[in-house]
Amino acid sequence: MPTPVSSDLYTQVQHFYARQMQALDEGRLEEYTQTFTKDGSFQHSPDIAPAVGRDAILEELRSFLKKYQDNPTQRRHFFNQMVLEPQEDGSIRSTVYALIVRVRPNERPEVWPSTVVHDVIEVTDGEILLRSRSVSYDQLV
Amino acid sequence: MPTPVSSDLYTQVQHFYARQMQALDEGRLEEYTQTFTKDGSFQHSPDIAPAVGRDAILEELRSFLKKYQDNPTQRRHFFNQMVLEPQEDGSIRSTVYALIVRVRPNERPEVWPSTVVHDVIEVTDGEILLRSRSVSYDQLV
Amino acid sequence: MPTPVSSDLYTQVQHFYARQMQALDEGRLEEYTQTFTKDGSFQHSPDIAPAVGRDAILEELRSFLKKYQDNPTQRRHFFNQMVLEPQEDGSIRSTVYALIVRVRPNERPEVWPSTVVHDVIEVTDGEILLRSRSVSYDQLV
Repeated sequence: MPTPVSSDLYTQVQHFYARQMQALDEGRLEEYTQTFTKDGSFQHSPDIAPAVGRDAILEELRSFLKKYQDNPTQRRHFFNQMVLEPQEDGSIRSTVYALIVRVRPNERPEVWPSTVVHDVIEVTDGEILLRSRSVSYDQLV
Repeated sequence: MPTPVSSDLYTQVQHFYARQMQALDEGRLEEYTQTFTKDGSFQHSPDIAPAVGRDAILEELRSFLKKYQDNPTQRRHFFNQMVLEPQEDGSIRSTVYALIVRVRPNERPEVWPSTVVHDVIEVTDGEILLRSRSVSYDQLV
Repeated sequence: MPTPVSSDLYTQVQHFYARQMQALDEGRLEEYTQTFTKDGSFQHSPDIAPAVGRDAILEELRSFLKKYQDNPTQRRHFFNQMVLEPQEDGSIRSTVYALIVRVRPNERPEVWPSTVVHDVIEVTDGEILLRSRSVSYDQLV
């Protein structure tokens, strides 16, 4: 059994997520991609193949965000209820709720979608990076 | 005056809540009931009597969730702004916002209700358990 | 380069915010103003001048809340994704999402507005106080 995560690490991961998601929501996409390991993978929707590597992740994000280019939208990702589980290989599994709030001109903020983020985290010399992220959607079909 | 809670305990309670509410939202009801002391009490609405003991809590939850059985619903409990106050008897009073997001087929996520959770927490040999939980609703009549 | 904030301080600021915002949402306005330094400034909307000093902050809040006096409203401020950056002068810059949920009689909870809170925090002898707070709104015009 791996040792449970320390409170210190739990708090560091909260802070890591805060910096990471502020970068994404403010459009600093390169900064976001740097939060992944060099060979990290990112699957932002269950129905697409994961992007692997920082360049591919950047391209995927730019492509995804194109749909907003004629449709100004401020998005905010709210993370909550983060559970961290150490794995045998030294990595840490993180399972965290993510609620996205979208704000558009002349509209009230809209809560959409509600998701769960599944990360695998690597901590090397005190630096936190994502080995992988996949996002599942609560939306029921 | 009891000593204020340490940052270490504050973080541990955040993690405890994350595990507890992921269990509830994923339908692992037995796991949720195990987060209460053996004689713990749970009052999820102000207008019902509290359920006392893990078996009673489990029965109460099953009964409550029956209303969703023909109405598939994914609920997510978002906790925020947690205040911890040590009590004279060694327990800890926790007052925390809880916003519930409901997702139903072919509907946008709905924020309902907004509540405040009032817990009394026991810490024994490093293990966190709830002695009691009562939930108040913001909904104004 | 200032030293990054410790996990201990990060958690203390979370707890500080929880107490502060529960005070505001419960209408304990004097308690809220005491979370500012004596010469602290508070700008709750970009288009108004900041209130400077605790008395002025109290007056500003009372004036702002007058619009709810014939319109009972429970507000809850949800903070998320807090980034803390130490400054050269020893203060700490805090950038944190704040989502406000409004509950009114016979209405569903409403998410409005989505904001970002920009604080400058002073820590003196372990006590946390705000030197300044300004709030920016996501609402796009």
